[in-house]
Amino acid sequence: MYPENFEKLIALFEKLPGVGNKTAQRYAFTLLNKEKEELADVVETIEGLQKIRRCRICGFLSDEDECIICKDEGRNRNLIMVVANPQDVTAIERTASYKGVYHVLGGLISSSKGIYPEDIRIEELLNRINDNTEEVIVALSPTMDGEMTALYLDKILKDKKVLVTRLAHGLPMGSSLDYADDLTLIKAMDNRRKIENE
Amino acid sequence: MYPENFEKLIALFEKLPGVGNKTAQRYAFTLLNKEKEELADVVETIEGLQKIRRCRICGFLSDEDECIICKDEGRNRNLIMVVANPQDVTAIERTASYKGVYHVLGGLISSSKGIYPEDIRIEELLNRINDNTEEVIVALSPTMDGEMTALYLDKILKDKKVLVTRLAHGLPMGSSLDYADDLTLIKAMDNRRKIENE
Repeated sequence: MYPENFEKLIALFEKLPGVGNKTAQRYAFTLLNKEKEELADVVETIEGLQKIRRCRICGFLSDEDECIICKDEGRNRNLIMVVANPQDVTAIERTASYKGVYHVLGGLISSSKGIYPEDIRIEELLNRINDNTEEVIVALSPTMDGEMTALYLDKILKDKKVLVTRLAHGLPMGSSLDYADDLTLIKAMDNRRKIENE
Repeated sequence: MYPENFEKLIALFEKLPGVGNKTAQRYAFTLLNKEKEELADVVETIEGLQKIRRCRICGFLSDEDECIICKDEGRNRNLIMVVANPQDVTAIERTASYKGVYHVLGGLISSSKGIYPEDIRIEELLNRINDNTEEVIVALSPTMDGEMTALYLDKILKDKKVLVTRLAHGLPMGSSLDYADDLTLIKAMDNRRKIENE
């Protein structure tokens, strides 16, 4: 019905996660109403994507060989936090309370999706760990795949004689206890701590 | 945190209607994971947008001077359906039960948004209507702005001595009567029809 190129744009938007035809049409009309200069800007930005790659060391996004975090001299390189995706790095960085470096696996081991240890950046993690490494913090989502990956990492890191820790599981701050699911409540009870006067 | 160009892409996605930062990030990562050829295709499609314009006659989208509907010889050009947006044309066309032509206003009169009759394509509508015009079907959404625009059209089309009709309001097909809002129920009762054996 629409001009061919416009239908094509709608089809492209429909490929985005969670976008149906109605939403894709709204997006396409938003682009259509943009000025020529704005469109040129959009095009330039998308073309610039080709320059973005993975950091050689940690796997985070970068437009250079090493990412902004790995290049930062003020970071403790002997403290490595293992995360699944680049988004997790930005989530932790937002808290501004972590001063180590990261290792982005680029996914999680998943039997249902057929993702095996060799498909994610585990080999690269092992190669990074040396005698100076103080601690590896496994910071994966507490989902089925996250737990499986964490267990696998735990197992293979045993030989490395490095301290391996995991993020705590429990009640999220500000949440209501009676809305917590059973598994979270069980974890919260198992991991209960003595109240200390700090 | 992310490379500059990637942050820019996220910012661009955030300008789309209803898209927050989290969703914009998901969209940006989807684009990032595309192959080089696919990205070139995306760029080409966006650049092609500049060729799309409004049909000279009805205001629908077209990549030529006249749109696919206005060019269609099989259409009854003396039957004009007035709609607010191009999306409405595709909605009606999907039913495959209308054989006239359209007039796309490009918006609705709205006192709250400060859109006046001269801001939408009403002048163009008046110029299209001639002695051969059989009927003007006002097909606007039954919202406040839609009603106001319909009333305005009704008033100025009176002088044209042309039959002006409106889409029926009532219970949507397949809906449950006890879930209908009061206004819809009142409309449905007011517009009740004798059951005919067809």
